[in-house]
Amino acid sequence: MSKLIAIGGGSGSGKSTLARALMARYPEEIAILSYDWYYKDRSGESEEEKARANYDEPKAIDVERFLLDAKALKEGHAIEAPIYDFQTHERKKATRLVEPRPFILVDGVLSYQVPNPRGIYDFYLYVDCPSDIRLARRILRDEEERGRTSSSIVLQYLQTVRPMHERYVESTKKEADYLVHSDLRPTDDVALVEEIHALLAKLA
Amino acid sequence: MSKLIAIGGGSGSGKSTLARALMARYPEEIAILSYDWYYKDRSGESEEEKARANYDEPKAIDVERFLLDAKALKEGHAIEAPIYDFQTHERKKATRLVEPRPFILVDGVLSYQVPNPRGIYDFYLYVDCPSDIRLARRILRDEEERGRTSSSIVLQYLQTVRPMHERYVESTKKEADYLVHSDLRPTDDVALVEEIHALLAKLA
Repeated sequence: MSKLIAIGGGSGSGKSTLARALMARYPEEIAILSYDWYYKDRSGESEEEKARANYDEPKAIDVERFLLDAKALKEGHAIEAPIYDFQTHERKKATRLVEPRPFILVDGVLSYQVPNPRGIYDFYLYVDCPSDIRLARRILRDEEERGRTSSSIVLQYLQTVRPMHERYVESTKKEADYLVHSDLRPTDDVALVEEIHALLAKLA
Repeated sequence: MSKLIAIGGGSGSGKSTLARALMARYPEEIAILSYDWYYKDRSGESEEEKARANYDEPKAIDVERFLLDAKALKEGHAIEAPIYDFQTHERKKATRLVEPRPFILVDGVLSYQVPNPRGIYDFYLYVDCPSDIRLARRILRDEEERGRTSSSIVLQYLQTVRPMHERYVESTKKEADYLVHSDLRPTDDVALVEEIHALLAKLA
């Protein structure tokens, strides 16, 4: 049996950086199953429907498929995870092999929004970061990666990301087993990575 | 004798909007003396020195000149306030006539950073707003008004605006006589403007 660890926190808090740093340092012990891979395939929808959809809401995720994969991994089976194309909002034909490890990290803004999270997760780690720093990182990243204008990023942040964050993410902070304060040090900091690894080792 | 009211709060919180809305609605009672007009004239400095200067620190302001003008206004005299050119970081030759009114509003991020603020101000109103909303507004405004790229705005925010805010602005919130929560309604909201006017009327 593997342990399943949810890594939650707002967009831009440093969740994925932490997950990747853990896996890079302990590749024999850690695998990543990103919750963002499980966005619903919208290939049946028109461009207009796709544009109107709210991707910051829990129902944007194919929870059923996620739970199947998560349970298989927990039981020691390799899985073929979906690959999501954020340009087309569709799943690619190819899949991504994820092999079981003692610790499976599930990072994602909405990762704790599964039904009965304590039934599936063994630990909930929340990456806490002030909202202005998260917005700043989001702007620097989105502008670079996706070539969007900052006004469109900022307006989307105010209209959907922020209210969804307060409703679905910030509200789960009190459920966390551990808080990482990512404004104080980067989440790929070696001492932090070792500290989290020591925490996880106690669960085994 | 006029009453001098400091309006503090972070960049993008809505201070100036509130001050202007009050003056527009009660022009016979209210004048504005913006603290930002009193940035030091740097005409003796090189371009390099100007670029290196920290404009978010209290010492960037010509406090002496500000206090002279503020005191004159309090005593019922009209003044000629400086006009600052934010492009060249120099004072313009022209000045701006400010005539005394029963209430003089001093808006500005650093307005409460005068020596002995209670010796000069009769009331301190703090416009409180979550940091991510302030950053969002700052980006939308700076991009539009000054044509800067969002990365330069964001990096400047993280490197100087944010630490200076925590040090010199947020720390004065506990001194405020009244807090306006500008994430809940815009600061030019008519009901809010009337509410603040009623507060000020009690000081007279």
